[in-house]
Amino acid sequence: MSNGGGAPSSTTHLLDFLEEPIPGVGTYDDFHTIDWVREKCKDRERHRKINSKKKESAWEFTKSLYDAWSGWLVVTLTGLASGALAGLIDIAADWLNDLKEGVCLSAMWFNHEQCCWTSNETTFAERDKCPQWKSWAELILGQAEGPGSYIMNYFMYIYWALSFAFLAVCLVKVFAPYACGSGIPEIKTILSGFIIRGYLGKWTLMIKTITLVLAVASGLSLGKEGPLVHVACCCGNIFSYLFPKYSKNEAKKREVLSAASAAGVSVAFGAPIGGVLFSLEEVSYYFPLKTLWRSFFAALVAAFVLRSINPFGNSRLVLFYVEYHTPWYLFELIPFILLGVFGGLWGAFFIKANIAWCRRRKSTRFGKYPVLEVIFVAAITAVVAFPNPYTRQNTSELIKELFTDCGPLESSQLCQYRSQMNGSKAFSDNPNRPAGPESTPPCGSCVPSGLFIPSMAIGAIAGRIVGIAMEQLAYYHHDWFLFKEWCEVGADCITPGLYAMVGAAACLGGVTRMTVSLVVIVFELTGGLEYIVPLMAAVMTSKWVGDAFGREGIYEAHIRLNGYPFLDAKEEFTHTTLAREVMRPRRSDPPLAVLTQDDLTVEELQATINETSYNGFPVIVSKESQRLVGLALRRDITIAIENARRKQEGIMLNSRVYFTQHAPTLPADSPRPLKLRSILDMSPFTVTDHTPMEIVVDIFRKLGLRQCLVTHNGRLLGIITKKDILRHMAQMANKDPESIMFN
Amino acid sequence: MSNGGGAPSSTTHLLDFLEEPIPGVGTYDDFHTIDWVREKCKDRERHRKINSKKKESAWEFTKSLYDAWSGWLVVTLTGLASGALAGLIDIAADWLNDLKEGVCLSAMWFNHEQCCWTSNETTFAERDKCPQWKSWAELILGQAEGPGSYIMNYFMYIYWALSFAFLAVCLVKVFAPYACGSGIPEIKTILSGFIIRGYLGKWTLMIKTITLVLAVASGLSLGKEGPLVHVACCCGNIFSYLFPKYSKNEAKKREVLSAASAAGVSVAFGAPIGGVLFSLEEVSYYFPLKTLWRSFFAALVAAFVLRSINPFGNSRLVLFYVEYHTPWYLFELIPFILLGVFGGLWGAFFIKANIAWCRRRKSTRFGKYPVLEVIFVAAITAVVAFPNPYTRQNTSELIKELFTDCGPLESSQLCQYRSQMNGSKAFSDNPNRPAGPESTPPCGSCVPSGLFIPSMAIGAIAGRIVGIAMEQLAYYHHDWFLFKEWCEVGADCITPGLYAMVGAAACLGGVTRMTVSLVVIVFELTGGLEYIVPLMAAVMTSKWVGDAFGREGIYEAHIRLNGYPFLDAKEEFTHTTLAREVMRPRRSDPPLAVLTQDDLTVEELQATINETSYNGFPVIVSKESQRLVGLALRRDITIAIENARRKQEGIMLNSRVYFTQHAPTLPADSPRPLKLRSILDMSPFTVTDHTPMEIVVDIFRKLGLRQCLVTHNGRLLGIITKKDILRHMAQMANKDPESIMFN
Repeated sequence: MSNGGGAPSSTTHLLDFLEEPIPGVGTYDDFHTIDWVREKCKDRERHRKINSKKKESAWEFTKSLYDAWSGWLVVTLTGLASGALAGLIDIAADWLNDLKEGVCLSAMWFNHEQCCWTSNETTFAERDKCPQWKSWAELILGQAEGPGSYIMNYFMYIYWALSFAFLAVCLVKVFAPYACGSGIPEIKTILSGFIIRGYLGKWTLMIKTITLVLAVASGLSLGKEGPLVHVACCCGNIFSYLFPKYSKNEAKKREVLSAASAAGVSVAFGAPIGGVLFSLEEVSYYFPLKTLWRSFFAALVAAFVLRSINPFGNSRLVLFYVEYHTPWYLFELIPFILLGVFGGLWGAFFIKANIAWCRRRKSTRFGKYPVLEVIFVAAITAVVAFPNPYTRQNTSELIKELFTDCGPLESSQLCQYRSQMNGSKAFSDNPNRPAGPESTPPCGSCVPSGLFIPSMAIGAIAGRIVGIAMEQLAYYHHDWFLFKEWCEVGADCITPGLYAMVGAAACLGGVTRMTVSLVVIVFELTGGLEYIVPLMAAVMTSKWVGDAFGREGIYEAHIRLNGYPFLDAKEEFTHTTLAREVMRPRRSDPPLAVLTQDDLTVEELQATINETSYNGFPVIVSKESQRLVGLALRRDITIAIENARRKQEGIMLNSRVYFTQHAPTLPADSPRPLKLRSILDMSPFTVTDHTPMEIVVDIFRKLGLRQCLVTHNGRLLGIITKKDILRHMAQMANKDPESIMFN
Repeated sequence: MSNGGGAPSSTTHLLDFLEEPIPGVGTYDDFHTIDWVREKCKDRERHRKINSKKKESAWEFTKSLYDAWSGWLVVTLTGLASGALAGLIDIAADWLNDLKEGVCLSAMWFNHEQCCWTSNETTFAERDKCPQWKSWAELILGQAEGPGSYIMNYFMYIYWALSFAFLAVCLVKVFAPYACGSGIPEIKTILSGFIIRGYLGKWTLMIKTITLVLAVASGLSLGKEGPLVHVACCCGNIFSYLFPKYSKNEAKKREVLSAASAAGVSVAFGAPIGGVLFSLEEVSYYFPLKTLWRSFFAALVAAFVLRSINPFGNSRLVLFYVEYHTPWYLFELIPFILLGVFGGLWGAFFIKANIAWCRRRKSTRFGKYPVLEVIFVAAITAVVAFPNPYTRQNTSELIKELFTDCGPLESSQLCQYRSQMNGSKAFSDNPNRPAGPESTPPCGSCVPSGLFIPSMAIGAIAGRIVGIAMEQLAYYHHDWFLFKEWCEVGADCITPGLYAMVGAAACLGGVTRMTVSLVVIVFELTGGLEYIVPLMAAVMTSKWVGDAFGREGIYEAHIRLNGYPFLDAKEEFTHTTLAREVMRPRRSDPPLAVLTQDDLTVEELQATINETSYNGFPVIVSKESQRLVGLALRRDITIAIENARRKQEGIMLNSRVYFTQHAPTLPADSPRPLKLRSILDMSPFTVTDHTPMEIVVDIFRKLGLRQCLVTHNGRLLGIITKKDILRHMAQMANKDPESIMFN
């Protein structure tokens, strides 16, 4: 045993210093949960080693400096790459989207707007008309007007949309199945300590980037916001391989991923602070203050790279940046809160419908044709979307127009209702269309897709309708007592764009149940503190209404659907069970598989391991006393025995295995014993059998444990794993405990 | 023992349901640390009781609704009160500050500006001259000009400053000694789980509010930002007494205090998001997501109340709100980083000087005359400050002018150097004066005082000087390669106000070592994302430079100076010691004082308690086996014995005490035994003796423990308390372990 005070003593719980470490001990299998405490200890150990060496030579000193700065380096690289990729995706999607309608003859790589901006013959009034830009009908039929050209354009639109969708889904299916969907549920699970190898790899990154462009361009009602978080996390993961500090430590790697997800939201919405809060509130599990600072840095770097690329040509980070100039009035809180109610209802409905659809996809034959599903949805969307100019454009451009305040310079069609007062009605009918059922399916289907934009679109449409209704009310009844004080005749007193924004926030809040980060993201879009109160009122109402129908957001619902082992930090454990009711073995079960510290043979040990499927085995002093010594993991034992057989002579099936410091006294003719102390965790977490489960759950959450031993008066009784806890929680909530599939 | 599954079973670790709870058990002594786990369990228990009752009657249902909403109610009330008090303090301080120079004859309660705004004879050019406003010389001597009147005004200025300072320090000394200083170190300690009764009470609130006004008005170089946090926390604490959910639970109360501190910063800087991040980064210890949301709400409410009061008459929340219109250039990062270096150096120097001064005050005779100290400093400040118009005004008004960009409408004297080109030099000399030694002492002395404003003033002055130097450089050398591209002749290309702001942030960052929250606060002051990068560069540099001289910020340094038991979540524990090296008893100590579960008499128990000073006693099965059963706290044992003697007949000195479920079999003639199971904590935290201290420290931090038992192979070895850990950490850092004074 160690003798206290010296440097190596603390590592006895991990590795015995007298022996060299066994390769592979301390790593994890795919689809297993990491042990945060162990990972953090490993990192501190590594840090101490580097620090103690750093005065030895200039080279070691440089290495220690490199190590100290690698955290900043990796988040900088991640921020740079995320910003650059986001800009690339924006530009490519824009170009492909316009390709559906026509092509720029002067320069193929220009989109519609760029094509006409470079043309000299463009006037301000007709910015989107110029001879260089040819619609497909003009190119193929040679005529720009008439029913024939309309049908030709319609056909080409559908043809391109279907091609893009087909290409996207095929690429995903063939090369990187992990590139499906938004990826946020999986990233949440990974950040909570789960391992899914390849989910953040280079293939996923490449395919996700390409197919995201194709999916957005195909006109499917989906957003690139969620997938951008996935893309940023892939960048973070890939860059972390440059630095052993991060590549070899699963806990440290997750710090980089937290920062990367902040960068992803930062470029998706142009909201660096909102991105950091999103990472803190929604995605991250372990978020020390150091990570807060680095996330902020990564988010800023990404935002500035994106702004330098300037994909929207307005030196703003997002398409839908707006500035309002009219204040809001207290009375308007009523429609805002109503929008919140709508958002909550929509969120609850969307989650239920989406989960039901995904469950059907999983359980029925229907799920076997993902390519057909996407093509079918893309075809319907394209057929329905083309005739209406609002749905023909990108969903985020639609949101932009909905948010816009109607000023004198505004060319949006949405603003014309004021001059032709009957237009108002026509408008409120039209853009309702994307709210139809066809906008629901893509989220969860097999193309990269986010639900931010579709939800925001629904909310923005609802909000704009309410806003216009209010405006008309104020216009025709400006002498009502409500409007009298603040609505002068002819003056703007209601901003329909603000209503659209509040509605978008409410719907997004209802679907994701985000709160502070959502308000901050939208606040960064508008840049005015004034509008925080309406936003907060709507988002809060939306969350409360949504929670009344089910406390899970869409991401949690998907995590549960997939059976990932995610212990939510937000959900409170309110039941009154005790540790001994949750621990294994249950009363009817066979007794707990334990190892004694010095009287097992290799054969007995292997038999114990093979007979059971447990991932860890408590080591005790003797069967009689049941006093706990430590815990040995299945994977480590298997690796250690194999390693000993290969490298140590004389290890046989009847060799004695011992976990103690000194070998037990053995008869003279017995084979060489096998010392396994180095793989023994001598500081396993223990709780007493009387500990309430609420405390146990708290310990698991805050410390990131994988398992915990249960004792009574110093005797070992059983074991509780993360899976046991999740199954217990599912059972207490009257859900199927078998749905938790992983450790 | 409980039989599993039923509602009462989980409470066995707290209270045995067969007996009624003993009054006083579960409370804490003054200057002790709370047990977060126990408090949170108590709250969940209370919540379950209310929930189970709520279907019984309409009244119970109303009660449960009230309980569910009380969290929102208390933060709303706190926000309202903080905003109102902040407005009041601003207005009163403004009026008192002007009282030093003169009085408004038409209405005594008007300050100088209001007095002249209401006058008809005021022109825009001479806004601060009007017949209603009389300086003291005019009133007393009857003449406005000449050396006599100057001396009279000078004298009255000093007279009022000294009176205010004297009144402030006397009020604090006599009525509420806790109203001293900024209070943030103490609030940090309280939020980490320490109890200081009266520190957030109504007396402290009242006296702090009044004396803060007096201190600011006396002209001392101090700010109201830190004390406003204290004032807001007092409000939070006082309002929490209206709700049993918060008043009776120390952990829940701290959630309210976290939200209150966010509200305090929100009104101090007009930065709601920055306030929340300040609370998260700097002040709070336990910050669940629910608290994040409520803090945000409290911060918003407070900001809006303050804006409605509109104390500055500009419908902004803060005095120094600015908007810049010129972008910054990459090259300017060099001066910004230099400002960061200056800020870090200043911060390190300030902390060292401030701590040295406070230590001297504590250890020498000097500390016995706090009133004299304040009067002395106030006198020097007043004497020096009066002749210079920049120092005569409030420090925050000085900062405002330093931040301001010189536009065509700007009346600030600072902007005149451009027309009389030699003015630049005169300015750079003048405002240097408040950077002299007299600005250091007030922080920590016995008037309510914050260091935000003085530090910001130093930084703003340094920044403005650098900015003006740069501007002159660009003006005279606009054909240098550096300026050539972006500095056209005659155009503004350098904003000295921006430099002042960056400098202010850098100095504040050097002193407090805040990072994200500081950047967000300053970002909210300017409202432009553009300036985040310069701010971040400066704040980061400042933190790194400061950390090179000592890793503690001013608040941590004060906490250590006062010996509070604060386990910093930011500081990493990097040593390699094991639990058994830290636990008590040490090798040379007498054995651990333990209680056996069923063979002690009341007399023996009392003797054990009286002989030792431990706050908790482990209960074991028997001395031979040393198997741990649970932990009983000294306070609870004392209360329980007293309670039993008073209420239960037949309890004598030789009564048997038992902690088991059933009474031990006793001889027929023995007195009635005393059952103490209800005060036994049956789920004490345990670690093995081999656990590295880094893990133990992590457990203490994340779970908020007060003590932890150490076992080896199931046998009890010793105990580790929070104080032991703090002493160990002090020892490892070569500091005096005896400086940790509290439990």
